[in-house]
Amino acid sequence: MPFEFKRLEIPDVILIKPKVFEDERGFFMETYKKSDFEKAGIKGEFVQDNHSKSRYGVLRGLHFQREPYAQAKIVRVVRGVIYDVAVDLRRDSPTFGKWVGVILSEHNKYQLYIPRGFAHGFVVLSDVAEVVYKVDNVYAPDHEGGIIWNDPEIGIDWPVDDPIVSEKDRKWPTLREAVERGWAF
Amino acid sequence: MPFEFKRLEIPDVILIKPKVFEDERGFFMETYKKSDFEKAGIKGEFVQDNHSKSRYGVLRGLHFQREPYAQAKIVRVVRGVIYDVAVDLRRDSPTFGKWVGVILSEHNKYQLYIPRGFAHGFVVLSDVAEVVYKVDNVYAPDHEGGIIWNDPEIGIDWPVDDPIVSEKDRKWPTLREAVERGWAF
Ligand SMILES: Cc1cn([C@H]2C[C@H](O)[C@@H](COP(=O)(O)OP(=O)(O)O[C@H]3O[C@@H](C)[C@H](O)[C@@H](O)[C@H]3O)O2)c(=O)[nH]c1=O
Ligand SMILES: Cc1cn([C@H]2C[C@H](O)[C@@H](COP(=O)(O)OP(=O)(O)O[C@H]3O[C@@H](C)[C@H](O)[C@@H](O)[C@H]3O)O2)c(=O)[nH]c1=O
Repeated sequence: MPFEFKRLEIPDVILIKPKVFEDERGFFMETYKKSDFEKAGIKGEFVQDNHSKSRYGVLRGLHFQREPYAQAKIVRVVRGVIYDVAVDLRRDSPTFGKWVGVILSEHNKYQLYIPRGFAHGFVVLSDVAEVVYKVDNVYAPDHEGGIIWNDPEIGIDWPVDDPIVSEKDRKWPTLREAVERGWAF
Repeated sequence: MPFEFKRLEIPDVILIKPKVFEDERGFFMETYKKSDFEKAGIKGEFVQDNHSKSRYGVLRGLHFQREPYAQAKIVRVVRGVIYDVAVDLRRDSPTFGKWVGVILSEHNKYQLYIPRGFAHGFVVLSDVAEVVYKVDNVYAPDHEGGIIWNDPEIGIDWPVDDPIVSEKDRKWPTLREAVERGWAF
C-alpha cells in the first residue's frame, strides 16, 4: 500500500504518509486513493477540494461547519510549512476539548485526516504556505462555526506569538460559549 | 458558480478557471466541486489523486490506461508552468488523432479536464513544476498504454526542443502502431 496511516493521541485523527517514487525527472506520488483510505477508516466521498495560500504568521481557524453540513477534511501542504491543529468538539468523546497538532510541509509530505466533529486551524511557519484539502461535504456559508484560536481552556501551543488573524476569526466564541450555543457535536 | 468552464477545439476537453478570493492573508479558491463539475459535463467519481514534480524540460507522456481501466483526468499545476496536451484516441470521433495543448501554471491556475479515450502528456517550461491531478479510475500498471511523444502523424508542437523523457516513454509506439495493437478506444 502506498500509504502509511498513523492514529494520533486522539485516535480518530490520522496522520498519512505517502510513498514517494523518485527518479531523474523528479518524483511521483499518489496522495489519495479511495480504496486504501477506506481500509484505514477514512470513508465517505470527498466532494470538494480547496486550496489556500497564506503568508508567514497567518492563522486560519478554528473552523468547522455545523450540522447537517459537518465536514471531514484531508489536509496537505504543497508549498511551505504549517502547524496544523484539530480540536475534538464531540461532546460524548473521551477527548472532548483536547487538541492535536502536527507539522505538515512540502518536505515531509504528511497529510492530516480530521473527521467530522472537529474544529480545524493552522498557522504558517514558512514565508508562504499553500494548503490543499479535500472535504466530504459542500461549503455551506450559513452553517459556518468557529472557536477562538487562543481559547485558554483549550490551550493550543501555537508556535507563532502574534499571528495574523482575519476579522471574522477574531470574533469566534470560546469552546464553552460555543457549547452553550449548541455548536458542539 | 466559482468556476468558468470552456470547451476547447476538441469539445470534450474542457478548460476550467477557478474563482480566486484574495485578502490580506493570501488567497482561497475551490479547485473541485462535484456538483458544479457535473453540471459542466464532468461526471464520475474521482477515486485517486496524484502529484508529480519535474525539472525543466521533462516530458511525461503520452499516457493512458487501456480498457477496462480508462481514466478521465483533471490536471492542474501548483508550482511552475507546463504545456499540457491531450490527444483524441477515440476511433469514431471526428477529432481522432487530433491534439490540443494549453499552458497550465501556478499563475493562471487553469485546470484541464481530459475525458477517457485520450492520451495525456506535458512538458515542463519552468525550472521546476508540480502537477496535481485527479483520476476517475484506479492505477492499473498492467493496463498502461502510451504513444510516442513525437509521433509525426500527430504533430504536437512541443515548446521544448530536446525534452527529458523516461526510458519507458522512449519506447511507446506511434498512434498507427497503437491502433494495430488494439489500443485505441
Ligand atoms: C471555506 C470556503 C470559503 N469560500 C470563500 C468565502 C470567502 O470569500 C473566502 C475565504 O473564506 P474564509 O472562510 O475566510 O477562508 P479560510 O481559509 O479562513 O477558511 C478555511 O479555514 C480552514 C482552516 C478550514 O479547514 C476550512 O474549512 C475553511 O474554514 O473563500 C468558498 O467559496 N468556499 C469555501 O469552501
Ligand atoms: C501513474 C502512477 C505511477 N505510479 C508509480 C509507478 C512508478 O514507480 C512511478 C512513476 O510512474 P510513471 O508512470 O513513470 O509516472 P508518470 O508521471 O510518467 O506517469 C503519469 O504521466 C502523466 C502524463 C499521466 O497523466 C498519468 O496518468 C501517468 O501516466 O510511480 C503509481 O504508484 N501510481 C500511479 O497512478
